[in-house]
Amino acid sequence: MSGNTFGKIFKITTFGESHGLAMGVVIDGCPAGLEITKEQIQAELDRRRPGQDKLTSPRQEKDEVEILSGIFEGKTLGTPIALLVRNEDVLSKSYEDIKDKYRPGHADFVYDTKYGFRDYRGGGRASARETLARVAGGAVAKVLLKRVGVEVNGKLIQVGQIKRSEDQKIEDFEREYKEEIERVKAEGDSIGGVVEIVAKNVPIGLGSPVFDKLSADLAKALVSIPAVKGFEIGDGFACVEKPGSENNDSLQNIDGQIKMKTNHAGGIVGGISNGEDIVVRIALKPTSSISKTQKTVDKDGNEVGISVQGRHDPCVAIRAVPVAEAMVALTLADHYLLNKISKL
Amino acid sequence: MSGNTFGKIFKITTFGESHGLAMGVVIDGCPAGLEITKEQIQAELDRRRPGQDKLTSPRQEKDEVEILSGIFEGKTLGTPIALLVRNEDVLSKSYEDIKDKYRPGHADFVYDTKYGFRDYRGGGRASARETLARVAGGAVAKVLLKRVGVEVNGKLIQVGQIKRSEDQKIEDFEREYKEEIERVKAEGDSIGGVVEIVAKNVPIGLGSPVFDKLSADLAKALVSIPAVKGFEIGDGFACVEKPGSENNDSLQNIDGQIKMKTNHAGGIVGGISNGEDIVVRIALKPTSSISKTQKTVDKDGNEVGISVQGRHDPCVAIRAVPVAEAMVALTLADHYLLNKISKL
Amino acid sequence: MSGNTFGKIFKITTFGESHGLAMGVVIDGCPAGLEITKEQIQAELDRRRPGQDKLTSPRQEKDEVEILSGIFEGKTLGTPIALLVRNEDVLSKSYEDIKDKYRPGHADFVYDTKYGFRDYRGGGRASARETLARVAGGAVAKVLLKRVGVEVNGKLIQVGQIKRSEDQKIEDFEREYKEEIERVKAEGDSIGGVVEIVAKNVPIGLGSPVFDKLSADLAKALVSIPAVKGFEIGDGFACVEKPGSENNDSLQNIDGQIKMKTNHAGGIVGGISNGEDIVVRIALKPTSSISKTQKTVDKDGNEVGISVQGRHDPCVAIRAVPVAEAMVALTLADHYLLNKISKL
Amino acid sequence: MSGNTFGKIFKITTFGESHGLAMGVVIDGCPAGLEITKEQIQAELDRRRPGQDKLTSPRQEKDEVEILSGIFEGKTLGTPIALLVRNEDVLSKSYEDIKDKYRPGHADFVYDTKYGFRDYRGGGRASARETLARVAGGAVAKVLLKRVGVEVNGKLIQVGQIKRSEDQKIEDFEREYKEEIERVKAEGDSIGGVVEIVAKNVPIGLGSPVFDKLSADLAKALVSIPAVKGFEIGDGFACVEKPGSENNDSLQNIDGQIKMKTNHAGGIVGGISNGEDIVVRIALKPTSSISKTQKTVDKDGNEVGISVQGRHDPCVAIRAVPVAEAMVALTLADHYLLNKISKL
Repeated sequence: MSGNTFGKIFKITTFGESHGLAMGVVIDGCPAGLEITKEQIQAELDRRRPGQDKLTSPRQEKDEVEILSGIFEGKTLGTPIALLVRNEDVLSKSYEDIKDKYRPGHADFVYDTKYGFRDYRGGGRASARETLARVAGGAVAKVLLKRVGVEVNGKLIQVGQIKRSEDQKIEDFEREYKEEIERVKAEGDSIGGVVEIVAKNVPIGLGSPVFDKLSADLAKALVSIPAVKGFEIGDGFACVEKPGSENNDSLQNIDGQIKMKTNHAGGIVGGISNGEDIVVRIALKPTSSISKTQKTVDKDGNEVGISVQGRHDPCVAIRAVPVAEAMVALTLADHYLLNKISKL
Repeated sequence: MSGNTFGKIFKITTFGESHGLAMGVVIDGCPAGLEITKEQIQAELDRRRPGQDKLTSPRQEKDEVEILSGIFEGKTLGTPIALLVRNEDVLSKSYEDIKDKYRPGHADFVYDTKYGFRDYRGGGRASARETLARVAGGAVAKVLLKRVGVEVNGKLIQVGQIKRSEDQKIEDFEREYKEEIERVKAEGDSIGGVVEIVAKNVPIGLGSPVFDKLSADLAKALVSIPAVKGFEIGDGFACVEKPGSENNDSLQNIDGQIKMKTNHAGGIVGGISNGEDIVVRIALKPTSSISKTQKTVDKDGNEVGISVQGRHDPCVAIRAVPVAEAMVALTLADHYLLNKISKL
Repeated sequence: MSGNTFGKIFKITTFGESHGLAMGVVIDGCPAGLEITKEQIQAELDRRRPGQDKLTSPRQEKDEVEILSGIFEGKTLGTPIALLVRNEDVLSKSYEDIKDKYRPGHADFVYDTKYGFRDYRGGGRASARETLARVAGGAVAKVLLKRVGVEVNGKLIQVGQIKRSEDQKIEDFEREYKEEIERVKAEGDSIGGVVEIVAKNVPIGLGSPVFDKLSADLAKALVSIPAVKGFEIGDGFACVEKPGSENNDSLQNIDGQIKMKTNHAGGIVGGISNGEDIVVRIALKPTSSISKTQKTVDKDGNEVGISVQGRHDPCVAIRAVPVAEAMVALTLADHYLLNKISKL
Repeated sequence: MSGNTFGKIFKITTFGESHGLAMGVVIDGCPAGLEITKEQIQAELDRRRPGQDKLTSPRQEKDEVEILSGIFEGKTLGTPIALLVRNEDVLSKSYEDIKDKYRPGHADFVYDTKYGFRDYRGGGRASARETLARVAGGAVAKVLLKRVGVEVNGKLIQVGQIKRSEDQKIEDFEREYKEEIERVKAEGDSIGGVVEIVAKNVPIGLGSPVFDKLSADLAKALVSIPAVKGFEIGDGFACVEKPGSENNDSLQNIDGQIKMKTNHAGGIVGGISNGEDIVVRIALKPTSSISKTQKTVDKDGNEVGISVQGRHDPCVAIRAVPVAEAMVALTLADHYLLNKISKL
């Protein structure tokens, strides 16, 4: 199959099925000498963990990470860092009754066609539980970035039709969108959301001019997250309606440093970071797993009804925040290292 | 630098600066035995060529392709296919007066920071002329795809605020957006656009489950095109506002074949093609090069005014259509080959 | 660091330090539907395991493999296969007294220079224990190859000056070389060896013409094994002394099948398999760890004596046999899959 | 096909068939700011060029290189450097009579099986003329290496049974081996040779510990050269017969610098350069193309006689010297850049 590795220099390879023995990640290419603790990695995993409130999946797992290799006496060795999380609270039985039915919005049908069979328990490799491994890898990337001053933060800015307006208090927005999620959940339904990620203090020069533009690699990184259906950088689709004279970010000299007057571009021009904040947004579709009955077919082609029980987030966008941060951090860490060898 | 190669199996590597001797592409990984003519490649290049009407750059170049290797007796050899196009109509002088000024919206400043210096003539490697090589490579991908029935077509669906409504005749839409472009051009300004690309008859099963999702690779492919600031698949950002019960595409059995009732997903679930049309859209910013005077700085940090003369398209989205098709075709060809070895 | 992944399609990524928690391998790119058991993998690991007789390291480890992912209901899923072996019998204390001394023939000094520090316990990542992960990955490759009839077998053909002559019984050769090893061991010394690996029934056409020649990838695969200092294919260095008319393998038609009359080439011409047995040989240097006192320096640059105690094989070539088979199998499996998409 | 790219950071992609329009190379990943002239590249090509004396192929080509991109005002831009050499003196007719016969020792038969057909003119892609592109790419690598003091030099040390003894004058050795080549040539036959390449002043730390050992990448680089059947580093196969106490290179402190007392390892331990000279050797088989009549089959399976006329070097090892230097230089340049990001 391939496709389980991300990055060119700072690379992660993830493995694991939702209801198999474990999820894991191997990070290859992290420079030696980076101080990192198990707690730093665990903290990121805890942010992603389900079962933390009633809006997310009630699956109860500690998701405790084990560092198998690559870190010695508190520092990275320059060798691959393998991180492992055992799967514990697996209720495979709840999938028995739908193992032959193709869940709408899910990869069941295409997996069967592509691979000839599949691990039907909880989505197997297609489960969003795979993102745990990304978050673990991203935690290491974040530590590397922090060392050079770069911070990556994400937040939810829209749920369904509830958008956070510019001067709205975060508490008010949260109250509003939680009500909306409660509402769709009560209907056995789900809803989508938009997540925005901002990276601050990114050095000028990250990204390669043609295919490996920083923007293109961020797009790939983020669209590879389950349920993502759209990606924007800076003003995104809105820039279409503006004339160039308004959309271009003018350059100015502030105390000897060249800075942009505005940041319509979202921190990247010609595929290369320009020193402004990198601002990206992603659209996440409503969770595909809903208890509301839907029409579908089973693997013999019979048309049947399906109600997906399991334990699912009614709005995956909430838990996508640390995952999106991880993917942005991984992309930046990779390009940070690559850029070190761009000139003599 | 790296970053000039796209693809895993069906790979292209492009080279060339806008005002250097030539642009070119090496296609590696095309299977042997594919019948292809120079005319098929030239036809795609001609669609992208500037100077075809008054809305695009008046740069006059035949852009005639030369097949240097990889094709023998009308068929691909399985060896690298090198395609070359000489640069002819290069007016480097028009860049002399702005060589030390950083054009807003352009990569001038970040190139100087990243590489220490740059080829200032016409954007050098950052020029959209580089997309010529993508179109040449994409032409070969299209021939490969056509052989298995896949068709890739793009079209402009929005210019500035002019969106094509569903039942609008193409002529009426074209007239409207051309007026809009004439208007901004007369003001020495530019405008953005949205391009939609549809791939038909894509086999079920293309794409890899995790990082190399077909959607993620399409996102990277398309966001790597100059001026692209947004990417959507299927309903894209609009899916956020719908409940899962409406957004999920139900499966049905039509004469023994499993098909979706709707196509909100845009032909990809779980990162893998499901047999429906693949539908993606990209947002292109207004052309950065405008004759209207803008504020900027020069390389010594002096704040100066700049009016970018050269020969530029007031709306790059128009000529982006064949480029976007090429990138989609390259991505599909690559995954088509990869998928052949996904099961025993 | 990078460099912990081998293969293009059928890829393995290994991790683990000798005295860390575990050694492991992630196999990505194995097609779905391959029947494989834990016993098949364990059997290969058992062949490599130390402590089996008095000629190999007395380190006592069961090296029991755990399949963490990628196999479901006895078949590969097409998802990454993660295999884990815990480190158990680690006597890190025996390394305390040499942690600051650079062992001659070892990577201690270059690791300190390259990475700034190192895991000094048992060689860390540079330990031959890393080859365990290769053997686990190679076991899966062997199962894939067996399904298409390919067999890979290695054997020791030389120890020190003891070469197996063509008509010598294997028992006689073994007795001779074991005496030789006993002799050097008694002296606190070590000795080198030559391993030959033969792959039978390899399909015609594996390998790519230029850099990724099957021979070149076998060379890389085998020279990457610790202690390997030489590689030959077919007649190897001996072919230098023969005229072309003797060295060329003539083609003949045997019952409608084109075969070679001889196999001086070792089964590969122009980098591509020709259907004959693939025959390669590697030279392994004498084990670097010897108890005999050697001169060296410590990390402060003081010239000191060193006697490496630990538990070491006096002739690493013996246990290199399954490792070399694994590397050949991995290379062949990768090229077997790649070749499936070489023509339409 | 793939397989036409070499390197991870400093990468070359070559293209071209022997009797097609041109041979070429695209170098991606060379840092910006390297001063380089066309003359430096041409000088390396001239060393490889045939027709220089009566011992090499009489094919008369200027092999003049054209720099298509990537170099501006005498310095590398950080963008891909494309180098092109047109094929001129192509006598395709001389191949007409053997186009259906499989030349022993050549890839004709395996190409037909792998790809379904082939460019039969002069070996097509399998021709040693492809090495021209390697030499062009290697010339850039050499300039990069020279800037940091590294020098790469190769020489012929054996032709047939004629080995240069340690105290033999180079003139005497040359006279002897030229006589030998004249002798086999007169018989319509060919002979093999051994080339040794030495790299001086290589920094400590190049190479990655596991699969991408510097030794493994050198092995791949060199065995990928046409006709190479064996590879050795340092003492190579000879180290097998020595005890560890003799083969290990002791470390010593010379004026505050750690150096080895001997260099049996050939400058690499644990896959990483140790600061000593890197010494590698390759065995090249006798040229496969000989005028002496050989037995073979044609593509219909008929057993036929064949006399390969064309214009061929009776001993390819002579012209392999600059090619081997190029491959070593490319490998070192790649690892030199990679090593810059191995620690914080």
